[in-house]
Amino acid sequence: MAERTKITLDESQIPRRWYNVIPDLPSPPPPPLHPATLQPVGPDDLAPLFPMELIRQEVATESYIDIPAEVLEVYRLWRPTPLYRAHRLEKALGTPARIYYKYEGNSPVGSHKPNTAVPQAFYNAAEGTKRLTTETGAGQWGSALAFACAQFGLGCEVWMVRASYDQKPHRRTMMEIYGAAVHASPSRATTAGAKVLADEPDSPGSLGIAISEAVEAAGSSADTRYALGSVLNHVLMHQTVIGEEALAQFAAAGEPLPDLIVGCTGGGSNFAGLFLPFLREKLAGRPNPVIRAVEPTAAPSFTRGRYEYDFGDTAGFTPLMKMHTLGHDFIPDPVHAGGLRYHGMSPLLSHAYELGLFEAVAKPQRETFAAAVTFARAEGIVPAPEPSHAIAAVIEEAKRCAESGQPKVILFNLCGHGHFDMVAYERYLSGEMTDFELSAERIDAALARLPAAG
Amino acid sequence: MAERTKITLDESQIPRRWYNVIPDLPSPPPPPLHPATLQPVGPDDLAPLFPMELIRQEVATESYIDIPAEVLEVYRLWRPTPLYRAHRLEKALGTPARIYYKYEGNSPVGSHKPNTAVPQAFYNAAEGTKRLTTETGAGQWGSALAFACAQFGLGCEVWMVRASYDQKPHRRTMMEIYGAAVHASPSRATTAGAKVLADEPDSPGSLGIAISEAVEAAGSSADTRYALGSVLNHVLMHQTVIGEEALAQFAAAGEPLPDLIVGCTGGGSNFAGLFLPFLREKLAGRPNPVIRAVEPTAAPSFTRGRYEYDFGDTAGFTPLMKMHTLGHDFIPDPVHAGGLRYHGMSPLLSHAYELGLFEAVAKPQRETFAAAVTFARAEGIVPAPEPSHAIAAVIEEAKRCAESGQPKVILFNLCGHGHFDMVAYERYLSGEMTDFELSAERIDAALARLPAAG
Repeated sequence: MAERTKITLDESQIPRRWYNVIPDLPSPPPPPLHPATLQPVGPDDLAPLFPMELIRQEVATESYIDIPAEVLEVYRLWRPTPLYRAHRLEKALGTPARIYYKYEGNSPVGSHKPNTAVPQAFYNAAEGTKRLTTETGAGQWGSALAFACAQFGLGCEVWMVRASYDQKPHRRTMMEIYGAAVHASPSRATTAGAKVLADEPDSPGSLGIAISEAVEAAGSSADTRYALGSVLNHVLMHQTVIGEEALAQFAAAGEPLPDLIVGCTGGGSNFAGLFLPFLREKLAGRPNPVIRAVEPTAAPSFTRGRYEYDFGDTAGFTPLMKMHTLGHDFIPDPVHAGGLRYHGMSPLLSHAYELGLFEAVAKPQRETFAAAVTFARAEGIVPAPEPSHAIAAVIEEAKRCAESGQPKVILFNLCGHGHFDMVAYERYLSGEMTDFELSAERIDAALARLPAAG
Repeated sequence: MAERTKITLDESQIPRRWYNVIPDLPSPPPPPLHPATLQPVGPDDLAPLFPMELIRQEVATESYIDIPAEVLEVYRLWRPTPLYRAHRLEKALGTPARIYYKYEGNSPVGSHKPNTAVPQAFYNAAEGTKRLTTETGAGQWGSALAFACAQFGLGCEVWMVRASYDQKPHRRTMMEIYGAAVHASPSRATTAGAKVLADEPDSPGSLGIAISEAVEAAGSSADTRYALGSVLNHVLMHQTVIGEEALAQFAAAGEPLPDLIVGCTGGGSNFAGLFLPFLREKLAGRPNPVIRAVEPTAAPSFTRGRYEYDFGDTAGFTPLMKMHTLGHDFIPDPVHAGGLRYHGMSPLLSHAYELGLFEAVAKPQRETFAAAVTFARAEGIVPAPEPSHAIAAVIEEAKRCAESGQPKVILFNLCGHGHFDMVAYERYLSGEMTDFELSAERIDAALARLPAAG
């Protein structure tokens, strides 16, 4: 194995089922609550937004759910994804660590997001949905859903945060290639958007406003539903194909399981997708890796947030979810890792963090870009800003191994490439990039506005 | 096989040698000539620009050349590349044709160009070169060479056509991530560039000027050499890993060899890389595919050019090469497929075309983008504008099969993705894209300025 650069699997080895970690946890995560009644949310509350099968998966109690044949057919376009041994990075760092990365950037849209976009589009099509709505920031999730909708003949309508819509037109064009309609948010197409524009005609928008618009548009038509790209249980479960393949790849290569697993966290889905199958092994008493989440210092929900019931969106339209949060109206500073700029965290991961099943660190922006450039020059792939947070933590650990002489086996998730992030790299290379200081006062002020619940 | 979406190979199945077609041809291609003496160019003429091993490969008489272990090590980062069966495209077209594509877009820079950039950097490093220079238009070749130089510790200096430097900054940023220095061409860093700027301070540059600058910079320093991304024999030979893998993939799947092989042509390297190993089978009397080059109507060197000795660059600094040419000072209209905007053609392919070993067609720009959008919605991958020419010809043939009922097996080379071409897609989708009419007068005028030789 030491000599191999990548461990590939044949398409017949794509996992046939998703792994649901909840039955294996010592206790289940607390349920989402209806904000008016503070009672657990039921299927009827969610039916206008999601198809019944996804609502069922959200609260599933079985350990595995079969992946439909129609979804596997589309997964075959890019899965299984390769597991790389980072020989060149190890050499550049002079470390005895053995570094592996699972690469999800060869999907049609360049990230792990289609792993859940495809089943979400499939279940919706199967239950008669004609059109899906969603929000997107930098556009990774929007392009994944646009691709998935094209595969199943669904219409797709995306509300893209105005600032990104203007500054990052290339992701918008990609969505349009797949046939999606893309609105700058706030838009006049919804009451919520029109209201914002009436108050502030030049509003740059926010993810919170875009969610409100997409949810409103889904609710206004019986054959239209809404799709979310992270945070929820079923989304994280769909991503477990990543970790299941990685387990099979370690086994096929006869390599011992990793000592350390690293992933970046925004809503939590790529990190969960990689580590949950390894956590299953750990909970069953087999090897005991350290598992480490890496978040941006600009949105440090694990390391500086509070574990409380809070809204998933800025406007407070969603159910209350118990999660690590910085407060639902906390707006993270504009770091380039747009996929990590979220005030909250997956309730499932938040619960697992409280159970002590993994640890978390935060990284400032410039350290992540320095790590990304080191990685690109060694390994060739130019990483997206989001997984560059994982790379920064891996390089830190590999340097510790160089000092201690420990040949640790490290695995991380390279969840996407940076082909649409060249503006950010240009700012870094030209020395114009800044880190952001996040004061305790700013966090305290946002946390003081948490809703009373639970 | 009918059910498989992609045929993958393990990294142990990367070809171990490149295929040199020249000994298998009924006659060798005419040699390049020194423009002053009109005598064949010798190794000494080329030594200031290229390492001896590449000069040797350019005139090699053996059928196979072993790929060095150090090159194979880097190929492993993305090779073998997948062979896809385009089930979804076939369905969208309602065709009985079985369509396959070899996908080269998963290389670190997103195209087939590293297949030759890596060995060129390796041989230079092995012979003591410290720095490579090159020119680039849209940036595909420049980023491939920058990546390859980073792998072997070489400096890399790229002259990028000013118009592209200003309009397509993202490819420039990618080169800089790999550590390359990128000049807008014309530049003040060379005499050739400074001379152009003295006459025309706002010159948008051209590939011809950029070649002159890169060649001058290479010649001015003993430890600096020059690298070219297409046209030459050794470049085409390095690309034959594509076709060798495709042959192995057809065999592994038990599929009969293709009835039709299609590729786009600018300088000819991706097309040659795919079809030359299949041509070897054809020359040996085995199955007899139709082989079809697809060029843009804006640069139709095969279909409207003349087979004559001409310069490879606009300024006339290169040796004279016998090739299909539109005249060395013919500037193609600004179609978005920048990689196909070349006045000439590989001398080796030009010779093979004269021998009747393949045919050629030309496609206008909007037809290629229409084909690309159809492809992306069906297959997910957003293709670069260059291979979209091949896709347009494949769709045309597949529709003919739908009418005739013939279940032809069609293979084409999807040599790169379009992640850096979203501006072009946006223009197409918004209806702002135009085709260009190329008048007979314009071609005749350029051909009238061909040098007298041969």
